[in-house]
Amino acid sequence: MSLNKTLLSQRAAGLTPLSVGRLAATARERGAVDLASGVPLGNPPEAVLAAATAAMRAGHNQYAPGAGSPQLRAVVAERLRRDRAAVVDPEHEVTITSGATEGVLAALLTCVDPGDEVLVPEPWFESYPGAVRLVGAVPRPVPLTSDGWRLDIDVVRAAITPRTRAILLNTPHNPTGRVFSAAETAALMEVCVRQDIVCITDEVYDNFVFGRSEMTSPLDLPSAREHVIAVGSFSKSLQMSGWRLGYCVASPALTAGLRRVVERTTVCAPTPLQEGAAAVSTASSGAENFRSTREAMVERLAEAGMEVSPPEGGWFVFARIDRVTPLPAGEFATRLLDEAGVLVAPGSAFFADPRDGDRWIRTCFVRDFEIMDQGMKRLENYLRPAAW
Amino acid sequence: MSLNKTLLSQRAAGLTPLSVGRLAATARERGAVDLASGVPLGNPPEAVLAAATAAMRAGHNQYAPGAGSPQLRAVVAERLRRDRAAVVDPEHEVTITSGATEGVLAALLTCVDPGDEVLVPEPWFESYPGAVRLVGAVPRPVPLTSDGWRLDIDVVRAAITPRTRAILLNTPHNPTGRVFSAAETAALMEVCVRQDIVCITDEVYDNFVFGRSEMTSPLDLPSAREHVIAVGSFSKSLQMSGWRLGYCVASPALTAGLRRVVERTTVCAPTPLQEGAAAVSTASSGAENFRSTREAMVERLAEAGMEVSPPEGGWFVFARIDRVTPLPAGEFATRLLDEAGVLVAPGSAFFADPRDGDRWIRTCFVRDFEIMDQGMKRLENYLRPAAW
Repeated sequence: MSLNKTLLSQRAAGLTPLSVGRLAATARERGAVDLASGVPLGNPPEAVLAAATAAMRAGHNQYAPGAGSPQLRAVVAERLRRDRAAVVDPEHEVTITSGATEGVLAALLTCVDPGDEVLVPEPWFESYPGAVRLVGAVPRPVPLTSDGWRLDIDVVRAAITPRTRAILLNTPHNPTGRVFSAAETAALMEVCVRQDIVCITDEVYDNFVFGRSEMTSPLDLPSAREHVIAVGSFSKSLQMSGWRLGYCVASPALTAGLRRVVERTTVCAPTPLQEGAAAVSTASSGAENFRSTREAMVERLAEAGMEVSPPEGGWFVFARIDRVTPLPAGEFATRLLDEAGVLVAPGSAFFADPRDGDRWIRTCFVRDFEIMDQGMKRLENYLRPAAW
Repeated sequence: MSLNKTLLSQRAAGLTPLSVGRLAATARERGAVDLASGVPLGNPPEAVLAAATAAMRAGHNQYAPGAGSPQLRAVVAERLRRDRAAVVDPEHEVTITSGATEGVLAALLTCVDPGDEVLVPEPWFESYPGAVRLVGAVPRPVPLTSDGWRLDIDVVRAAITPRTRAILLNTPHNPTGRVFSAAETAALMEVCVRQDIVCITDEVYDNFVFGRSEMTSPLDLPSAREHVIAVGSFSKSLQMSGWRLGYCVASPALTAGLRRVVERTTVCAPTPLQEGAAAVSTASSGAENFRSTREAMVERLAEAGMEVSPPEGGWFVFARIDRVTPLPAGEFATRLLDEAGVLVAPGSAFFADPRDGDRWIRTCFVRDFEIMDQGMKRLENYLRPAAW
């Protein structure tokens, strides 16, 4: 056993399996209602399925261009022009990746060297700190404010050191549901430009913005474009998380670097599936489909005694549990799963120090209404034993 | 411009675009005959296409398990049992990756830290040194012998330092066509085990072994299994390089590390395509289809005055050009493309010091016989101007 330990790199030995996926597998085995994980419902549009099938039959089964299918890159550029008013050159500024996950990895490899530091707003998507460590860099948490998860530019500034090369933004934000405002984004990008820090902005939920919020992105600021790598995905908007199709949008200079990286990480994204995804000029907002589920979940979590604010975007509700249980979130989630048959994600997964997440759980409202209802009933009953 | 340079990481700035792919694109634009690049002919088997289509229609469009589809892992284990007599547990020793390229990257991340050294037999597959640098490590060339490209264990030993953590083997070998012998493999693995070095063995051409050679692999040595990560692919055997499906076979301890890495590099390989590939228990040897093309290419390169030995495996012929041209290979290849309309890969791409490849070209015999014939005629005519 000690032998095997020496064969693992320190970076691999230091990674833990992603907890939400592991919990979801357990929940599935037990037939519990999973309100934790974020996996698209449904299937890609018919036109996409038909185009992917036709591509396979037409012999599009060998390597795609490393930059990605020209058609799919054009779709990305067209969508950004329409939705974000961002002028993007598909020839020199778009690179197709094997999902947004490879997009983030490739972006990190493109602008970060071993020993460099990467700022990560905290709480964070569980995968980020490990991705930063995988590339040999050091994740530096940038705590969002405790009153509404705002990005305080003074906290960003305080976290910057001479080794800081990038910030890994995520908007709409998982797990908090924040869509960072135009003012927050502008303040951040001013600092990035001044300090030559690249903003890697993971916008995989950009198709899911609710209420009066508006999607904003560092891409919206022409003066900051040299310092942005925007990462997107077809997984959520076209309901195809298993097709592994994402993209990076960046300046021609960073894109040239990204493409040299991607030909060594995966060569290219799956060819026939790229042809499939290129068949639709990308879905309109997915928010409408889940507006009522989101509202109901927020209301019911609040009625159950948790502190919640309606998420501005994304798929998740981040709820504070102090008033309903003295237990730390991990134990609370375990009991909910064991005793009530419903899975929520404990907040510990989203913080550098897991104890900082002890008062928080994350739930996902991208569910059929009936499933959400069933899961919430189990949670409500568990929290009201006196009512039995 | 200097601004953008500072935004690129040193590792990304140090990568060059892969030359063979770039040359092939130029050849394609000009309608030249490409005898350089290695891309499968044809298409996946009908059963595979049908199964992938059925999987998409049946709703298998979301994330696959990070380890890969259980069915596809079982196919890998079954094939290794049959072809290599290797006992492999699909549950704990097989991980599906987005192609062998991600397999090699994930293997490196799993056992190598920044600053560590990785031995790479030279000449090498063009992608390797950049992959090693991407993970922050240092590639150390291990020159194969000049008389027959053998792996001299004393040369291996001499290249080892206290920072050596892995060797990146490739067998059947690109570009030389060597299939390393059982004796060479055993000697290598004895050193690896003694020095706690992981042998990452890229065996994507294992289905293409010719003549009296026999495929051998570090996997064949039970005593070395803890020190092996074998990387394979469905791209060549099932003619689906664009489907991005490969795999890593390793001990349970290394596999646990690999899986934690892969969930941060790509999450999983494409779900419906995994279902497709699992539909056949993997093709029988592909060598028969190209035996005559290989023999004809070797003979004709020799008749044209080059020094060649028949490749024992893989897709390529590595030919020495001293006797036919005084030009370095890069310039020779450029003239062949410009003046004769045929592309060969200059040897410079396969050596640490490009000048070491000046006397070598690589050609690929995985072609329709007529295409090979046409390309060779152009090359022959170019080399015999006096005959006109």
